[in-house]
Amino acid sequence: MDDLAHFEKNLRKVVARLTEAPCPPKLAEAIEYSVFGSGNRLRPRLLLAVAKSCGKMEKELCLHGAAAVELMHSASLVHDDLPAFDNADVRRGAPSVHAAYGVATAVLVGDALLVGAFRALTEAATKCPERAHKLMKLLTETTGCPAGIIAGQAWEQEDNVEVLDYHRMKTAALFEMAAMGGAICSNQDPEGFRSLGHYIGMAYQTADDLRDELGDTNDLGKPSGKDKALNRPSVVAKMGVKEASSLFEVFLQKAIDSVPVCNKPEELTLFVKELLERFKLSGNIQSNSNKN
Amino acid sequence: MDDLAHFEKNLRKVVARLTEAPCPPKLAEAIEYSVFGSGNRLRPRLLLAVAKSCGKMEKELCLHGAAAVELMHSASLVHDDLPAFDNADVRRGAPSVHAAYGVATAVLVGDALLVGAFRALTEAATKCPERAHKLMKLLTETTGCPAGIIAGQAWEQEDNVEVLDYHRMKTAALFEMAAMGGAICSNQDPEGFRSLGHYIGMAYQTADDLRDELGDTNDLGKPSGKDKALNRPSVVAKMGVKEASSLFEVFLQKAIDSVPVCNKPEELTLFVKELLERFKLSGNIQSNSNKN
Repeated sequence: MDDLAHFEKNLRKVVARLTEAPCPPKLAEAIEYSVFGSGNRLRPRLLLAVAKSCGKMEKELCLHGAAAVELMHSASLVHDDLPAFDNADVRRGAPSVHAAYGVATAVLVGDALLVGAFRALTEAATKCPERAHKLMKLLTETTGCPAGIIAGQAWEQEDNVEVLDYHRMKTAALFEMAAMGGAICSNQDPEGFRSLGHYIGMAYQTADDLRDELGDTNDLGKPSGKDKALNRPSVVAKMGVKEASSLFEVFLQKAIDSVPVCNKPEELTLFVKELLERFKLSGNIQSNSNKN
Repeated sequence: MDDLAHFEKNLRKVVARLTEAPCPPKLAEAIEYSVFGSGNRLRPRLLLAVAKSCGKMEKELCLHGAAAVELMHSASLVHDDLPAFDNADVRRGAPSVHAAYGVATAVLVGDALLVGAFRALTEAATKCPERAHKLMKLLTETTGCPAGIIAGQAWEQEDNVEVLDYHRMKTAALFEMAAMGGAICSNQDPEGFRSLGHYIGMAYQTADDLRDELGDTNDLGKPSGKDKALNRPSVVAKMGVKEASSLFEVFLQKAIDSVPVCNKPEELTLFVKELLERFKLSGNIQSNSNKN
């Protein structure tokens, strides 16, 4: 069984402990629906790859850390899709949670996943209390206020927004959690991995902005042009497709350059390159940006 | 400075760490607004009273534990008031968070407070890692799925609901957190305090149902008759005012009888009696129930 299969198996167990009796049946169904769609598991992959590259990996902690990151990501998607935010009825090619189960249940699914992420870490703490505590602290910093993904999402409600700050908090913070969390799971200093997570996240969000402009509904699983219609802060709106594409290339290179000294830097670099290649391909950014 | 003043001072600090720069200003303002209304701080009071009655109290942990419970409670109020749930424009005599700041910001305030509660506990963990970990585990159990307050709230979306299960999860769970959390802060076995929290919570919710039926808008800070109009599961709807009032009395007595062996049982019993007396007075339940 490869790492991702182990991850999925463990995630099923973690989620099953949330949805078992006496959980209200509709909420339980909606939680399962929100987590087991067709997600790419980018953040758990990154966490596991960093942990492996550091050696001294503690497998159970890694799997629970990766589960926590993915549950937080799922929570953010469910709440971001709500009518008060993106009003997105489609996610990953299927009805979004609120479209399928109603707004009230969708709010509670997000809440339950937020708490569920911390629960996954408390479950892992029995074996490695110190590392689990560091993961918990990092998870609060990268998801909550003042600078995590929840705070990032709130920039959409403000009049004056610096788009790169918005992206850093809304998107890059959870990639930082994944990269730094992987280091914590292997007992390495997480600070050395912050830039790696940051630039991967910034590249990811820049690709997302470009996709919204250039199209590619299939890969995105949501209609393109949506962010533009909602007047979301966007690097494309700020600097145009050509400059945004250049910025994307800068973030790609900075991500690759950010792989720090570790046990297996070549393997990690290869993983990062493959991950970044996905962002390019799915957005068809290279070819489009050449035209502009 | 008494315990509650210490609690408020510490809560200000905990919240200030959430709302400091670079937190988006509107979100920061709404977070402050949601926490520093005219709340009665019942759950923090209970946590502190139990901790004191057990001796060996670790003050910083207590204050952070009490802050975590209150932040969770505030989060649940903000989300419960949303249009998709109670659609309450008034809370504690003032505009609810979504009425004042919009639905999107209210959703994010709740999310930020959920994460902020865990952050408060991670901050306390430096000094008492084992106790903080127990508090975190208990917080996930009493707030998340399958049986915490979020799961409890989700029963409102189901067709077949056992009202006492709904109350146990939606309301009593967080009182259990407070009572058991107080014991954890003082290094005592929390299980001995579960019933105390449970029955206080059940009495509280029964009083709330009676108030909704019998009136008392001022004390409740929200219009009475609202739960009835929304067809919420209610002990009054299930068994009528007379039997619900009797049940309230049963819960009161069971709560008093649940004070376990501890260092200062007389003081704790006195606190519990005073707390329960508030439920009676605010609902004017005694006099009304005598009429029915």
